[in-house]
Amino acid sequence: MGVEATMLDAVLRNWKQQIERADKFFGSKTEEQLQAHIAPGKNRLIYLWGHLIAVNDALLPLLGIGERLHPELDAIFLTAPDGAAEAPSANDLKAAWQQINAELDAAFTRLTPADWIDRHTSVSPEDFAKEPHRNRFNILIGRTAHLAYHLGQAKLA
Amino acid sequence: MGVEATMLDAVLRNWKQQIERADKFFGSKTEEQLQAHIAPGKNRLIYLWGHLIAVNDALLPLLGIGERLHPELDAIFLTAPDGAAEAPSANDLKAAWQQINAELDAAFTRLTPADWIDRHTSVSPEDFAKEPHRNRFNILIGRTAHLAYHLGQAKLA
Repeated sequence: MGVEATMLDAVLRNWKQQIERADKFFGSKTEEQLQAHIAPGKNRLIYLWGHLIAVNDALLPLLGIGERLHPELDAIFLTAPDGAAEAPSANDLKAAWQQINAELDAAFTRLTPADWIDRHTSVSPEDFAKEPHRNRFNILIGRTAHLAYHLGQAKLA
Repeated sequence: MGVEATMLDAVLRNWKQQIERADKFFGSKTEEQLQAHIAPGKNRLIYLWGHLIAVNDALLPLLGIGERLHPELDAIFLTAPDGAAEAPSANDLKAAWQQINAELDAAFTRLTPADWIDRHTSVSPEDFAKEPHRNRFNILIGRTAHLAYHLGQAKLA
């Protein structure tokens, strides 16, 4: 493998590792266990999981690889705080989580190193010319850290 | 910038972003504030910070860029649970944190893309030939997620 392919492999491996950890953690919880708060007065597990699912879903248009699959999750898990709106069932969340991650996984294997360092869709060609770090690769690394950030919290429940 | 340099830049940017967030969060706390627990019965902030410092210090030999600067932190923050050993003062921790991060930062700017995808020191040349993903780049991405993991917890305090 060349340098580019090895670097891409490392970033994809770390993304997958965080996804697998989240999958193992949240996917094994019962509906009741998902109601647990990570700490007194803090978010419930189901809210963190829904939040991560909505953020992953938003990666599809942001990386220019597809349409949103579950835009309805935003109002519950991104724009509203925990408890303000009724959350879907654990089964529905799990189905959305798996569907979105499968879609991302399929797209990630198609993208070339050159595609990865190309701009994401929330930056204009003009701005990207001045700020070339606003690329897909940067987004994926940031989202990997975001997953880890909330997993660290979830593990406290 | 070519593909390799752009990919390296993205990973270094995300590492620095997590370091800056941790610096801002922990570095602004008083000795007393650092005694807060992230949740009832869970680790104190000072323990999380010391843990991150010890892990960063261990990157120096792991990435083959230098000797440990503060190996004495391991017994307090890596091998012992929170509270088992007396922690250094906030001032001493801050000095170690800054010293170690400056050393890492200086080394990171010297390493080339080819250096980054070369093996780290805890894998033998023989094993690395079979498992080329055990490289410096992979370590740095994993440590970025590790920083985010504990920052997510720290923010709950």
